[in-house]
Amino acid sequence: MSWISSSVMGRKGVAHGKPGKTHQLTEEAQGQYYYVYGPYEKPVLRIEPGDIVAAETRDAFGGAIKTTADLPSKVLNFPYVNPQNGPIYVEGAEKGDVLAVHIHSVLPRGPQPAGTTALIPEFGGLVGTAQTAMLNKPLPELVKKMNVTTEGVVFSDRITLPYEPFIGTLGVSPEIEAVLSLQPDYWGGNMDLPDVAPGAVVYFPVQTKGAYLFLGDCHGRQGDGELCGVAVEIPAVATVQVDLIKQWSIPGVRLETESMIMSVGSARPMEDAARMAYRDLIRWMEADYNFTESEAYFLATQAGRLRVGNMVDPKYTVGASMLKTYIA
Amino acid sequence: MSWISSSVMGRKGVAHGKPGKTHQLTEEAQGQYYYVYGPYEKPVLRIEPGDIVAAETRDAFGGAIKTTADLPSKVLNFPYVNPQNGPIYVEGAEKGDVLAVHIHSVLPRGPQPAGTTALIPEFGGLVGTAQTAMLNKPLPELVKKMNVTTEGVVFSDRITLPYEPFIGTLGVSPEIEAVLSLQPDYWGGNMDLPDVAPGAVVYFPVQTKGAYLFLGDCHGRQGDGELCGVAVEIPAVATVQVDLIKQWSIPGVRLETESMIMSVGSARPMEDAARMAYRDLIRWMEADYNFTESEAYFLATQAGRLRVGNMVDPKYTVGASMLKTYIA
Amino acid sequence: MSWISSSVMGRKGVAHGKPGKTHQLTEEAQGQYYYVYGPYEKPVLRIEPGDIVAAETRDAFGGAIKTTADLPSKVLNFPYVNPQNGPIYVEGAEKGDVLAVHIHSVLPRGPQPAGTTALIPEFGGLVGTAQTAMLNKPLPELVKKMNVTTEGVVFSDRITLPYEPFIGTLGVSPEIEAVLSLQPDYWGGNMDLPDVAPGAVVYFPVQTKGAYLFLGDCHGRQGDGELCGVAVEIPAVATVQVDLIKQWSIPGVRLETESMIMSVGSARPMEDAARMAYRDLIRWMEADYNFTESEAYFLATQAGRLRVGNMVDPKYTVGASMLKTYIA
Amino acid sequence: MSWISSSVMGRKGVAHGKPGKTHQLTEEAQGQYYYVYGPYEKPVLRIEPGDIVAAETRDAFGGAIKTTADLPSKVLNFPYVNPQNGPIYVEGAEKGDVLAVHIHSVLPRGPQPAGTTALIPEFGGLVGTAQTAMLNKPLPELVKKMNVTTEGVVFSDRITLPYEPFIGTLGVSPEIEAVLSLQPDYWGGNMDLPDVAPGAVVYFPVQTKGAYLFLGDCHGRQGDGELCGVAVEIPAVATVQVDLIKQWSIPGVRLETESMIMSVGSARPMEDAARMAYRDLIRWMEADYNFTESEAYFLATQAGRLRVGNMVDPKYTVGASMLKTYIA
Repeated sequence: MSWISSSVMGRKGVAHGKPGKTHQLTEEAQGQYYYVYGPYEKPVLRIEPGDIVAAETRDAFGGAIKTTADLPSKVLNFPYVNPQNGPIYVEGAEKGDVLAVHIHSVLPRGPQPAGTTALIPEFGGLVGTAQTAMLNKPLPELVKKMNVTTEGVVFSDRITLPYEPFIGTLGVSPEIEAVLSLQPDYWGGNMDLPDVAPGAVVYFPVQTKGAYLFLGDCHGRQGDGELCGVAVEIPAVATVQVDLIKQWSIPGVRLETESMIMSVGSARPMEDAARMAYRDLIRWMEADYNFTESEAYFLATQAGRLRVGNMVDPKYTVGASMLKTYIA
Repeated sequence: MSWISSSVMGRKGVAHGKPGKTHQLTEEAQGQYYYVYGPYEKPVLRIEPGDIVAAETRDAFGGAIKTTADLPSKVLNFPYVNPQNGPIYVEGAEKGDVLAVHIHSVLPRGPQPAGTTALIPEFGGLVGTAQTAMLNKPLPELVKKMNVTTEGVVFSDRITLPYEPFIGTLGVSPEIEAVLSLQPDYWGGNMDLPDVAPGAVVYFPVQTKGAYLFLGDCHGRQGDGELCGVAVEIPAVATVQVDLIKQWSIPGVRLETESMIMSVGSARPMEDAARMAYRDLIRWMEADYNFTESEAYFLATQAGRLRVGNMVDPKYTVGASMLKTYIA
Repeated sequence: MSWISSSVMGRKGVAHGKPGKTHQLTEEAQGQYYYVYGPYEKPVLRIEPGDIVAAETRDAFGGAIKTTADLPSKVLNFPYVNPQNGPIYVEGAEKGDVLAVHIHSVLPRGPQPAGTTALIPEFGGLVGTAQTAMLNKPLPELVKKMNVTTEGVVFSDRITLPYEPFIGTLGVSPEIEAVLSLQPDYWGGNMDLPDVAPGAVVYFPVQTKGAYLFLGDCHGRQGDGELCGVAVEIPAVATVQVDLIKQWSIPGVRLETESMIMSVGSARPMEDAARMAYRDLIRWMEADYNFTESEAYFLATQAGRLRVGNMVDPKYTVGASMLKTYIA
Repeated sequence: MSWISSSVMGRKGVAHGKPGKTHQLTEEAQGQYYYVYGPYEKPVLRIEPGDIVAAETRDAFGGAIKTTADLPSKVLNFPYVNPQNGPIYVEGAEKGDVLAVHIHSVLPRGPQPAGTTALIPEFGGLVGTAQTAMLNKPLPELVKKMNVTTEGVVFSDRITLPYEPFIGTLGVSPEIEAVLSLQPDYWGGNMDLPDVAPGAVVYFPVQTKGAYLFLGDCHGRQGDGELCGVAVEIPAVATVQVDLIKQWSIPGVRLETESMIMSVGSARPMEDAARMAYRDLIRWMEADYNFTESEAYFLATQAGRLRVGNMVDPKYTVGASMLKTYIA
């Protein structure tokens, strides 16, 4: 039997973590893609807790970078980047609930080379940006295309990297804000966190009636921090199972796999993202795993793990995790 | 003759900095106040460049803190705080233009004690917050009320501070986002910058047709950084003259008084806000004051001034300024 | 009568703020200059509380940049930069005391052009550095020389700036550390804070027997933040009067003028420097000016002022101040 | 044959990575322990490249916390904490060389419970500190003692954690500074990085003749970030083999295991530490692994890993690594 039955989704979900109906959210069904996480658009789909959605996501550039000659500064039209599928209305979801998203699979689609990365002027972790404003000249703009299959990411003639896909941008709508899909925050969004991968269950605090689930920006793989700002961006079919948890209040994104629990923080500077993540992990351990605050603080000190999702987006994202074997 | 004629607004404005018709934006005329800066609401008023708007602003708490017994955690309903007048549609404004806002006056209104400050749990510059997440217990919640007239702010029996009012939150709408009025950004918003005061002209990069001007959150006065997170919050009548500048591209908020020019940056950590402000000041000096980049960099080093607006909001705001006597 | 009699130095100093004997610390008397603040060197001078020292300081480059052709990367030998006069042993000073340094004057000396500023590769507030590590190419190296007299700083043909000198690097020795004179910290050092100017009294927490006072790095003037990293560097005669305060415990540098009190913080990121400064200002107001913590916090919020000294050194320096008229 | 022969130490070391004579640096042989990394003390030992040192290290508290009743604020005497073995003079080492330290083993010693962790007032990642200055009250002081053997760390009745020891503080002397052993920097020091573990080779840029190797502060294990500021602190026998590499210039600490290479950065804010680490990793890949800068930047983006060593010390430490299988 799957570990899902013992997950928070399995134990507390309206659908008890059991899969329901499957919806195909093709490019055609989606129609217009969206560039903000907000409550102001009409849902493209309405689902019940337990339902599965197979979404045809576009890459973060909306497919505009077809060859290495398609320089981002020429083919992109900011802020119309990072197109999202959704919003998906989840029946019964209300502010104060938690939306559980169990990721079944992320599969590449479209013609090869399906993967794109790039150096974009004034964007990235090792260059001056609009915020970390510098007088230095930008690096030359550059595009790299890669063949991406479930067999691997062909980085170069000599290097093929494992295909370790995840969903870069995933979350629910804020209550009254509509925020660029480029930004991560407590409702999810552009976390670019490699743990948001097939097998995981991700939990989001619902802010508005129907939750308004968005997703997009799949990555064939990514290192910690998404250093140059652009992972192995791919168009994909992302299949997720959605459940709804009533009466569970969480301040931000949480995540669970068979082996660990993780709390996620998004903020600048990076230490604040780490603080948010670790504080929430401690509070989770207090609430659900029978720890006092100081014992949880001590255990996080001796056995906690940090994952830097991104160090390039409007807020940096860090996940703090604990192995279930230490706390169960 | 006023210095305004030599300001950017005076020289380049569609109305040449000349005042036009006056509009009364009373509480009644405003009707519903708004909590986000965005393009999704119907304008409450349409004006021509040169027109003057006298807006009855509410205090940041929407007037909910009437006595020291009205604790913020009891009477506020997040995110419905920091109510804004607007949006005001400016005829002819388009993305790529600049909106000039010349502040004529900010006058307190309403019954005394008109001024409110407070210690709000997990908010402020010297306490743990949702982002700078700490395990320490919050400080006790506390409200302080102050009589505020144009004669002064009665801080206590022994201390009366000068009335030095300004508009805490002022700006235009983002293009497709709707962002909490609590946040400052390149379009303005909750900068909490004391230089946004009567006499100044503030310039905003227009992002959307009609500009959608918002304003609110007037302060009877404030120190640098708005340390505890809450200035001398007052309901007020803020009177501003609006002009429109075509063909002037600016990356963020700029400001001008008779004696100086200032560029504004909003970001975290604070050094990034300072970098944004200083880089834009240098570029302004290059473009309009006949400096090379290196000479502007050198002069900013020897004669630039920094003002920390806020060190408490979702982004910190810093202004970098240069005296006109050094560059004219 | 001077305000000094009412200063902390005047009221609590061993010498009651009264000037004693004057010592000439010429280049010759100094002999070897030093590059660290530490207790490991033999004092060059021993003085009594109240004594005055007139020190011939070298500029931050030890005079190595004589013309615009003397590029820093060629003529400087890191870490042998920012040479300091001292250490000066103050009789009676012990760990836990406070050293008061009243700055009488800072006068330029040496042949003209006496002032130097420069763009140094990978150093400065708007470029990638060893810490804010970037892949962007450095800006071209550049030296600028300026005539500097008490009449003014001749920045260019069209711009003469006021001569507003101060001591860039001033402080006492740590207890067991020896730290580069490039770094500011709780014991003083390279704060590059324009308030450390003639007229001010600066207070340092003594860490070691004899205090070991160091000084150097005089500036003809400087803007907030010392943006490019190099102020108007001058060789100077800095004249300071030293007093000793027993039984006054302070956690870092404090400063007093006729009109205000200031606490200084040095840290990264910049908000931490501001937090350190403001927290100590609040504690000072509690201890010596009859405020409760919350009233001091509120008053700092409404009337505090922040000065960014440097945003380029190993730690950024920020001063938080309060006018004496508000608290006396 | 060991991978060591293909390591930088094995290929370029004066001793070719071959072990030489073993030196016992017992508590008695060490005599006085030291609290700064600096060149001002007489070496306790002189060794040749290749030599092995088995050092009896004290725990970070110098053994002063014997029971849970020994509260840090009572038994510690700042800055006399984190005692170090050394300095060890390495024959032939000069500024510009690299010292290679191959860690053979870290074994616990002393009576049980040998492990100590603690909540220390105003210290730790989730509390206000001297730098992240807050007005909140500190958490209660607390000591936890743990049995530590090579079989495991007995965290509590229900939790035994793996024994995964490393050396918390390890490095060489700065050139003219003497810096607290509490601080990490480009010469090493208190990095608190779990990768500095048995099996690894750590590389330090030599700053002074003889290198002056220091070590101490062994940990029975630690989570990422050393969250509360105190790992599983143990007295230990740390056995290291030292080699010397001429003609290899590195800007900071590097590290190598059989499977990966890592560059280390120490700075605040945390993103600067990550930037330092990643930039040096890229430059290492360019210099030694046949990558262009942009290809190295891309590969780090898709396959780099970040480890947060500490988020509590005067500088935060982050390691950026790359699997050898991707680059060999």
